Amino acid sequence: MTDTPALANDRFLRALRLQPVDRTPVWIMRQAGRYLPEYRASRARAGSFMNLCRNPEMACEVTLQPLARFPLDAAILFSDILTIPDAMGLGLDFIEGEGPRFQRPLRSAEQIRALSVPDPEDELGYVPAAVRLIRRELAGRVPLIGFAGSPWTLACYMIEGKGGTDFRRSKALLAEQPALMHELLETLAESIISYLAAQHRAGAQALMVFDSWGGILPPAHFREFSLRYLERIAQGLDLGEGDTRTPLIMFSKGANTHLPALADIGADALGLDWTISLAHARELTGDRVALQGNFDPTLLYANPEAIRNEVARVLADYGQGHGHVFNLGHGITPGVPPEHLGALVDAVHEFSPRYHG
Amino acid sequence: MTDTPALANDRFLRALRLQPVDRTPVWIMRQAGRYLPEYRASRARAGSFMNLCRNPEMACEVTLQPLARFPLDAAILFSDILTIPDAMGLGLDFIEGEGPRFQRPLRSAEQIRALSVPDPEDELGYVPAAVRLIRRELAGRVPLIGFAGSPWTLACYMIEGKGGTDFRRSKALLAEQPALMHELLETLAESIISYLAAQHRAGAQALMVFDSWGGILPPAHFREFSLRYLERIAQGLDLGEGDTRTPLIMFSKGANTHLPALADIGADALGLDWTISLAHARELTGDRVALQGNFDPTLLYANPEAIRNEVARVLADYGQGHGHVFNLGHGITPGVPPEHLGALVDAVHEFSPRYHG
Repeated sequence: MTDTPALANDRFLRALRLQPVDRTPVWIMRQAGRYLPEYRASRARAGSFMNLCRNPEMACEVTLQPLARFPLDAAILFSDILTIPDAMGLGLDFIEGEGPRFQRPLRSAEQIRALSVPDPEDELGYVPAAVRLIRRELAGRVPLIGFAGSPWTLACYMIEGKGGTDFRRSKALLAEQPALMHELLETLAESIISYLAAQHRAGAQALMVFDSWGGILPPAHFREFSLRYLERIAQGLDLGEGDTRTPLIMFSKGANTHLPALADIGADALGLDWTISLAHARELTGDRVALQGNFDPTLLYANPEAIRNEVARVLADYGQGHGHVFNLGHGITPGVPPEHLGALVDAVHEFSPRYHG
Repeated sequence: MTDTPALANDRFLRALRLQPVDRTPVWIMRQAGRYLPEYRASRARAGSFMNLCRNPEMACEVTLQPLARFPLDAAILFSDILTIPDAMGLGLDFIEGEGPRFQRPLRSAEQIRALSVPDPEDELGYVPAAVRLIRRELAGRVPLIGFAGSPWTLACYMIEGKGGTDFRRSKALLAEQPALMHELLETLAESIISYLAAQHRAGAQALMVFDSWGGILPPAHFREFSLRYLERIAQGLDLGEGDTRTPLIMFSKGANTHLPALADIGADALGLDWTISLAHARELTGDRVALQGNFDPTLLYANPEAIRNEVARVLADYGQGHGHVFNLGHGITPGVPPEHLGALVDAVHEFSPRYHG
């Protein structure tokens, strides 16, 4: 990226680098989403979810919507973790009320072996194009986060054909044919590295990997089939060093017993779900990484006064120190009243400066 | 209980008391359930799930079915955790394909304050009646486990009216009106103590509390709204001491970061889901309690050879020592072929003696 203005607000990047900040930065997973009426209007105009993702102008419009409402410290590219399997030819549809479906899920070794790494500037070119456009429109207000799904999470979706299952086909494949599962995960890791590198070249100022389904695995399988490939990604990306390094955030939902191992793979920060104390997570990770989270997303249905109390609790749980990025422990859900999120962001602004004395 | 024969197989009770055993005892959560064709036949004959629970002869028949197929080391009363709210007047239905529903969920402070502790020998008398009958029919072959849901888990179901939600009403009540939530939890804790005591008097030889939804809470809320009431139950039951004590098992699914605290509330054993290493759980609990688990229930869809490998892995993970009860990390699911469970039980018999040298 050249010819882009300096960042007016670098609080998010500084916290990820464990550098001093004046208050705790805050952004929200799925902040550009269905809880916003303006998002629902854009989505209706686009005709389908994937049309929104594939059109850089519309992806840019939707990415910026939450920033117009709330004083957030980062933007995140509007896209989906399933763009890679879609580009691999599995045929992605979003069924209303059911979520993503693949027309051609992986049901044979031949299908797995026939997969190839998609070109991030060709089949997936709409993604770096959206990153470039959003960077221009953001004009340095806040940093832009690029992202991808983890190899294990993408493998689950590709094998099952959809989410929301018990992943019995994926787990049976892992237990019966581990070598074949590793072939799939290696192709996916290579694809994800190339895809995140393209987002980085296009201007993404931080990267995040969503290992949404890591936490469904028994611990030995988590290490072999999820963690190993998260480490491969962290090691395979060239993100620079020191003050100019592009921070990498890893989020393995439900994998809290693995935090010490996750802190050692080369990521700059770990995302946390809401079921672990931030103080405990700091102990487990020895302050080697920044921590991002972990307000319970369902508590956004409580009233604003209760939300303020919960924000105070989460901030106090992390305590003194600069390596905390405030976020939910999972994406914001469609039924949350937007003003409840406003109460959360205001409370982070009001309560957090005392932790950065 | 008088006039009952001595136990022919006390392996399960000995393991719960951390006493030497010749091999690791095994039973399976929901072992009397829909994966068995003979269960589905009984269920069809009963007309409804609650008819099965309320009829001691049918509850006994169904309880004994898995023991006729597999050499299991314990029987568990066939019943449901929602019998208490049903006896409190909430009106329980099981909707085909949807699970339990309450006709009158708790939607006001008045409803919560009007609840009273059900008489376990009157409204709930069918439960101790089933325990007495099953003990007689078991004739000392293996011990019988009685059980109840935890206060927090029952509160969630009673407030939401059903399971499978994000529990937004329960979490909003907890955050907005904590004192009212505590009133509800105290009534439930008292009801559960009285209910488990009645099962114990009727002949239950071990007791288990299912805190199915403890793991959805942020840690501070887990301690205040779930753990505190599990401790109240452990302290409120009079189960004896030493070799004649009736062991109490607590299972807080998804609450692995709280294992050290759970080990200190006065339970004899903790249930574990499949997302934590048994070796790690032993470290965290310092061998103060026995551990029950934790085979991934979804891995029962893999082929028998893979199931045997997984059983070997779980046994090795616990390692040498007597305080392990083999089980799944959650209930067995309806689609599992019964012969796959047979492969699991056989593998526990074959592989576990080496850990009890």
